[in-house]
This record gives sequence, C-alpha cells and structure tokens, in this order.
Amino acid sequence: MKTKTILEKFGDNVREIRKSKGFSQEQLSFKADLHRTYIGMIERAEKNITLSNIEKIAKALEVEISELLK
Amino acid sequence: MKTKTILEKFGDNVREIRKSKGFSQEQLSFKADLHRTYIGMIERAEKNITLSNIEKIAKALEVEISELLK
Repeated sequence: MKTKTILEKFGDNVREIRKSKGFSQEQLSFKADLHRTYIGMIERAEKNITLSNIEKIAKALEVEISELLK
Repeated sequence: MKTKTILEKFGDNVREIRKSKGFSQEQLSFKADLHRTYIGMIERAEKNITLSNIEKIAKALEVEISELLK
C-alpha cells in the first residue's frame, strides 16, 4: 500500500474532521475565511498549504494543528 | 506582550532546536534540501512556509512537526 504524503494525510484529516462536525466545504471555507474551491483542493491534496492557512483551518475546525497532521 | 504569530513561533522553534543539535543554518539547509537563505527567512518568520517544507525541516531536525508548532 502506497504511504500517503503529508498533504494527503492533511487533506484526509480535514475532510474527516469537517464531516464529523457536520460542516460542508462551503461552511468551513466561510469560517476559515478561505475560498471554497481552496478547501476542496486542500482535501484532495492538490495544494501545498501554507502554515498560516493551516492555522486558519485548525481554528475553524476547533482542533489543534497536530490533529490535522496525524 | 504581543502574542507571537504561528510563523514567529515556528521560526523560533526551528532556530532553538537547530542550535540545540549544534547545526548551522547551512548544515540544516543541506540536510533538509532547502536553500540556506530560506532557512534564515523561516527563522525570522519572513516566509509563510508550506506543509511539505515543514515536513522537510522536521525530518532534518529529527523531531515531530508538532514540536515545531508549540
């Protein structure tokens, strides 16, 4: 089984936690002050996210950043 | 006292751990396969580092990414 890249792990964690909290991508993008398409690209590991945007998403999901990196 | 931004916290942690391991910026940049000036800019919080570069620096310093985000 191919090991996941850090971007894939991050994207999967964002999607999983977002869904567990009942947010749509649109709701998360509004809370995180990021564009909805950007959230989709992050979840599909199509973007190399920056640290300040990682913090925005973690705050919007109300989790520690480390939660998103497991 | 002004609270540090996530980029400042990250930069300070990289500098502190790098020094505790006795690495110069040049040695860290070589180990992390990043440019020396980039390491300096990260330590001064002048760059919004990406997740894949965060991983490179954590691996080069042999620490968990969460160590660099405390």
